[in-house]
Amino acid sequence: MSKPYKKILITGAAGRLGSELRRGLAPLADTLVLADRVACENLQPNETALVFDLADEAATMAATEGCDAIVHMGGAPLERPWEEILDSNIRGSYHIYEGARKHGVKRVVYASSVHAIGYHGINDGIDADAKPRPDSLYGVSKCFVESLASLYWDKFGIESACIRIFSSFPEPADRRMLWSWLSFDDCIRLVTACLTTPHLGNTITVGMSDNKVKPVNMSNSGFLGYQPQDSSEPYREAMEAKTDAADPKDPATHRIGGWFVNLGHPNDEAAE
Amino acid sequence: MSKPYKKILITGAAGRLGSELRRGLAPLADTLVLADRVACENLQPNETALVFDLADEAATMAATEGCDAIVHMGGAPLERPWEEILDSNIRGSYHIYEGARKHGVKRVVYASSVHAIGYHGINDGIDADAKPRPDSLYGVSKCFVESLASLYWDKFGIESACIRIFSSFPEPADRRMLWSWLSFDDCIRLVTACLTTPHLGNTITVGMSDNKVKPVNMSNSGFLGYQPQDSSEPYREAMEAKTDAADPKDPATHRIGGWFVNLGHPNDEAAE
Amino acid sequence: MSKPYKKILITGAAGRLGSELRRGLAPLADTLVLADRVACENLQPNETALVFDLADEAATMAATEGCDAIVHMGGAPLERPWEEILDSNIRGSYHIYEGARKHGVKRVVYASSVHAIGYHGINDGIDADAKPRPDSLYGVSKCFVESLASLYWDKFGIESACIRIFSSFPEPADRRMLWSWLSFDDCIRLVTACLTTPHLGNTITVGMSDNKVKPVNMSNSGFLGYQPQDSSEPYREAMEAKTDAADPKDPATHRIGGWFVNLGHPNDEAAE
Amino acid sequence: MSKPYKKILITGAAGRLGSELRRGLAPLADTLVLADRVACENLQPNETALVFDLADEAATMAATEGCDAIVHMGGAPLERPWEEILDSNIRGSYHIYEGARKHGVKRVVYASSVHAIGYHGINDGIDADAKPRPDSLYGVSKCFVESLASLYWDKFGIESACIRIFSSFPEPADRRMLWSWLSFDDCIRLVTACLTTPHLGNTITVGMSDNKVKPVNMSNSGFLGYQPQDSSEPYREAMEAKTDAADPKDPATHRIGGWFVNLGHPNDEAAE
Amino acid sequence: MSKPYKKILITGAAGRLGSELRRGLAPLADTLVLADRVACENLQPNETALVFDLADEAATMAATEGCDAIVHMGGAPLERPWEEILDSNIRGSYHIYEGARKHGVKRVVYASSVHAIGYHGINDGIDADAKPRPDSLYGVSKCFVESLASLYWDKFGIESACIRIFSSFPEPADRRMLWSWLSFDDCIRLVTACLTTPHLGNTITVGMSDNKVKPVNMSNSGFLGYQPQDSSEPYREAMEAKTDAADPKDPATHRIGGWFVNLGHPNDEAAE
Amino acid sequence: MSKPYKKILITGAAGRLGSELRRGLAPLADTLVLADRVACENLQPNETALVFDLADEAATMAATEGCDAIVHMGGAPLERPWEEILDSNIRGSYHIYEGARKHGVKRVVYASSVHAIGYHGINDGIDADAKPRPDSLYGVSKCFVESLASLYWDKFGIESACIRIFSSFPEPADRRMLWSWLSFDDCIRLVTACLTTPHLGNTITVGMSDNKVKPVNMSNSGFLGYQPQDSSEPYREAMEAKTDAADPKDPATHRIGGWFVNLGHPNDEAAE
Repeated sequence: MSKPYKKILITGAAGRLGSELRRGLAPLADTLVLADRVACENLQPNETALVFDLADEAATMAATEGCDAIVHMGGAPLERPWEEILDSNIRGSYHIYEGARKHGVKRVVYASSVHAIGYHGINDGIDADAKPRPDSLYGVSKCFVESLASLYWDKFGIESACIRIFSSFPEPADRRMLWSWLSFDDCIRLVTACLTTPHLGNTITVGMSDNKVKPVNMSNSGFLGYQPQDSSEPYREAMEAKTDAADPKDPATHRIGGWFVNLGHPNDEAAE
Repeated sequence: MSKPYKKILITGAAGRLGSELRRGLAPLADTLVLADRVACENLQPNETALVFDLADEAATMAATEGCDAIVHMGGAPLERPWEEILDSNIRGSYHIYEGARKHGVKRVVYASSVHAIGYHGINDGIDADAKPRPDSLYGVSKCFVESLASLYWDKFGIESACIRIFSSFPEPADRRMLWSWLSFDDCIRLVTACLTTPHLGNTITVGMSDNKVKPVNMSNSGFLGYQPQDSSEPYREAMEAKTDAADPKDPATHRIGGWFVNLGHPNDEAAE
Repeated sequence: MSKPYKKILITGAAGRLGSELRRGLAPLADTLVLADRVACENLQPNETALVFDLADEAATMAATEGCDAIVHMGGAPLERPWEEILDSNIRGSYHIYEGARKHGVKRVVYASSVHAIGYHGINDGIDADAKPRPDSLYGVSKCFVESLASLYWDKFGIESACIRIFSSFPEPADRRMLWSWLSFDDCIRLVTACLTTPHLGNTITVGMSDNKVKPVNMSNSGFLGYQPQDSSEPYREAMEAKTDAADPKDPATHRIGGWFVNLGHPNDEAAE
Repeated sequence: MSKPYKKILITGAAGRLGSELRRGLAPLADTLVLADRVACENLQPNETALVFDLADEAATMAATEGCDAIVHMGGAPLERPWEEILDSNIRGSYHIYEGARKHGVKRVVYASSVHAIGYHGINDGIDADAKPRPDSLYGVSKCFVESLASLYWDKFGIESACIRIFSSFPEPADRRMLWSWLSFDDCIRLVTACLTTPHLGNTITVGMSDNKVKPVNMSNSGFLGYQPQDSSEPYREAMEAKTDAADPKDPATHRIGGWFVNLGHPNDEAAE
Repeated sequence: MSKPYKKILITGAAGRLGSELRRGLAPLADTLVLADRVACENLQPNETALVFDLADEAATMAATEGCDAIVHMGGAPLERPWEEILDSNIRGSYHIYEGARKHGVKRVVYASSVHAIGYHGINDGIDADAKPRPDSLYGVSKCFVESLASLYWDKFGIESACIRIFSSFPEPADRRMLWSWLSFDDCIRLVTACLTTPHLGNTITVGMSDNKVKPVNMSNSGFLGYQPQDSSEPYREAMEAKTDAADPKDPATHRIGGWFVNLGHPNDEAAE
Repeated sequence: MSKPYKKILITGAAGRLGSELRRGLAPLADTLVLADRVACENLQPNETALVFDLADEAATMAATEGCDAIVHMGGAPLERPWEEILDSNIRGSYHIYEGARKHGVKRVVYASSVHAIGYHGINDGIDADAKPRPDSLYGVSKCFVESLASLYWDKFGIESACIRIFSSFPEPADRRMLWSWLSFDDCIRLVTACLTTPHLGNTITVGMSDNKVKPVNMSNSGFLGYQPQDSSEPYREAMEAKTDAADPKDPATHRIGGWFVNLGHPNDEAAE
């Protein structure tokens, strides 16, 4: 059985998630093109690497040539000053979609974020495609790409999954991750589902493991066939032993964006 | 413990599903009355058989006499010229409901179909009782019976479950069935749930196994207590090895009715 | 300015509503083709007349030839024995849609009925496209045509408006019509809106005048641009003076189908 | 790891559920204060006991002093004459909330009941926080406390979970409990989840085990992290053997309140 | 034409709204029975008066005898200490419903209040039957009666309209009333609609005039046929000239309960 | 009565709508600060003018100083190449919001656009705050600002109304504007409502006059008190006389974005 893709471009390939996806997506494509601002290490036979900045339009568009799918994990991974968000996340993602359009890439899987909807309450009973309610400029940039993905599907026929990743770490790193955690293996399962589902269209979903706490109604995403296999539960006891209980009235506790909602403006922070 | 029913009429008993239901529903009734246009084979001690056409009003109504439930699987099982759909599915089902009314049958389980709602999109997040959106004259006839069932409940107090069966086959027969498959055993479980739930009223639900891909939100059907036990997953690898990937933009891929949405008019086909 | 249509076929043209539509739709087409089982009288220069039964497939299909729109008001106008409903409303409407398909008619306006949804409660807050819940075989036949219209749009691209007409009479004829009345002029306004709206697609709406009591949320139909100008209010005092108050617990009072919900089976009635 | 609470007040501690909660909640607090109208037996080292009537404002408020959470299970446990409902459930619960307000208690878990929503239909597809539709004065008193809890959250910042407990018994005691059963262990799991979830706010949920029949859509309660471990299924066969099937048209069968919906007025009963 | 009612009991008849209703409801009944804690003045020939306290069960129930409808406006009209709310609003309203049940009164129109839902936001887009979210003990008592009305309809067949009256005053008395005002004439129109609609069942609606600002979606109440004729607009200029603009972040501005949401606990106030 | 604002900044003040708003908003502020890339003419005594480019961060932020409200109409008014959209609409609007934050501006009214949701269907029955579904890069930039407005409310407490303006022209300029038209006077009414409503929070609404065709359900915006006074109806006859009927199957007819949905990529166009 041949692989579903010939060549998949992975942006942010040197990052935390990118490294995992190199392993996880290998079965899906003959070649993985690894792109990052820094060099990726330990290249495998099925891998080629590119070093460029997403803000570089020409380089970014060139990287998409010949690819039949893009897993776009690159860009600033958390709140940063506006200029950096603008360059890496807004302009950079536009370059990716323009590359896809110019070179006939059929499908994009994008690492959106819980921070695109971070001000929704943990007990609001939101759906996976809840309306934008960003908690940071970082989150605003994620909303921007989600609307860009919508346009490129409706107008240019490029399929996208925008995965609002909650907290993808090796293991839960704080109490909040007891409900927001997405294990690396589940992340790979979800990206794989988005790449292999027969019809993707323009889809917004969320990325969490099978944790006990489920603040999002996932029924609209059932067509993806994503079934998480991991849970934060084995980490609960140790985490609760070493950390204090959360304050129920702290917005960081009751908004799904967590501590991002308590951040000030990144340019103020940078100026200090 | 006595069986819940004295006599259940199964129409279409010689068909693919009918044969399985003979086995599966045996525990629910003292007698199964098997009805079909052709003779049923291998009659068991708990079975009696009738041969007639559903378009035959007198015969159909007579068959319902003395029954306390009907499992109505008969009629044209896929797209057919209008006259045949009219006779077997529309007129035939009317005869069944009239028989139920005249002879005091309390409950009907009807094999409706995914094709009653086939033009809904696979990622529309539909509920089990989504609005009619048929993909064929066959599907229109299923919508007809669903509205007939509604009338016979509201006006005459006859309970019905209209099960929108997706793809009930011995095993998944094409890639689409990797999400639409309903195993025979799960079909029996679902029909059994409909026959034994304390209160059925007029219910519309869908019939699928516990496949990974779940394009329908089933929460409104939770009261039935149907818990599928089978999955298409064990068949995936072999199926993907021997078939080509679906085209994401083919309506047969992204509409839940599958290839039915690409059929022309059956009378045109018949004329060719 | 030329008229929007060259030739509109009006079925049921000799009936109560049909006569009014002859007057009301004259500005929309060069020619009105009047079809009924009985001869239409007082033919005008812009009118041609045909006499045939909708159950006659050949005649019905022939009548649609050369038309660019159909206003399908024909068929049994209230509860009738099954065979008559089957012939005039189910088979007859199928012939109309087949004629439209064969002869390239672009748009159909169909007289559906409140009786397609008659078992919904008057205070259920339903939308104009509420799910089928027929109160009679007549109502079931209306549901059938609504699903047929859906199919012919999705598969064959024929636009339809199914207008669930409540009570279209010269003036309110009983207390229920104080809320369910659709004046003839408003009926013409609504049919005209359906024929002239730039995009119709497949639309289900309801037909009522601007009565004080509004049991249906019409917001989904706002795109049609229908603005009723009449009201039952001027008739209220006289009607209340000459009729008894309704019994609040009579289903005919609290179900929107009115006295239809209290009808028995039409074939039983016929047999008496 | 220290326990999450210093002192939890359990009302109704001598009752059926209260006794179980003594065992189940011990890990959550240094001290459990057991309150009931009758003496609790077998006091453990971590327990202190109080005997008073909830209608006694001074005693009830005094009992809440020094507690940081209240598990309010006390009051009339089923339909009773109005004066008793008024005193124990309405006035008594007001005393509890006033105690919480005066003494700075942060969180209340309240035993609301299926009877607050008992007239909803079993196949209505309700959510866990369905609108009030009580089936008894008992149910009305539960609605009262739910609205009181809402006020005390919005105005005074006291978090509450109102758990609409279905049927919490050692094992299913009738056929209805095959779907409405909440095992004692699952009840403890649910109360524990409400006491330990980082942010509770004002939450309404339902209490049922993982029974096959699921008449309530729980997706809005996913943030609680409650995962039932028990099921009524092992009891089904024996229960069905010894009891008659339910009448599908008996309101006690199709309304979720069960036999409560068939009760008359409790003061009439008392007068007989 | 005879009047629709023989005898209507109006509670709170000596109050602000009660006096208006004496005038407004006169056309609906042969006799108005006026009940209040104080004597009503200027009795008309069609009026009889009773003086009693709603907390007096025997007197209240006696007052309902022989009436075929009750317009229940009595009880504490705003936030009061708990004991007073309990006696006049909770116990008092129970006595009214018990009187209705014992003496066969068919329909009750109850003055519920915006304060039953006062914590909903002005821009939340709520429906007329939004979930309880009281802003005061007064509001909690309104929720109590709404749930009581639900019970007495479902179990005893007594129809009720619970009108969540916003601000019924001779004219807008503060800036908030520019959107919350219900003129006396519109109040009479609404109560009249509730008394004369053919089927009322158990209905929750809101009472506001046709003000420009419409924070509540009224589409579910369209079946009542209530059409307000007054507007606060003529009072705007004068009101804005003599009062300061509201603070957008004051909860009294953005919660529909207005200044009630800023009230403390009434018993604390009373103690001061 | 003093004016509600001391100083309102109007961006895009030299544009089509800006000129009208100078007239219309004069009653709301002591001073209007007119900002545009070109000089505004005919300055009035209550006006001061600034000439700068929104892409100029320092100038834009300086312009907001001392203002208590901003009416942000500036930026590219239709589809433009990406770099221009990026500079004027994305970067420019960020500068506006940063100015508001730095200088304590309390409220922003933003000219969002139908093109933020242009791919929704005209008969989809959308609400005023429908999910983003842009039809152009221009529309994507409008979605960006809507999410930015959400962030600045949730995190920094700046109120915003994002008005999705449909077609604001002196009079309907094509057939589509017969339903999408927003007269200048109604535009002024709507902006005025947004500036004077007591509580605005973060609001998304749409801007259309009281045209017959109403494709958007406005019930969620009722709290604004916007009541359009104009209608396209007087222009219908002339418009229909001089233009051809729309093709019902042209996306420009059935998507609310109109001809924008048929545009290609602006950079391609620019390159030609």
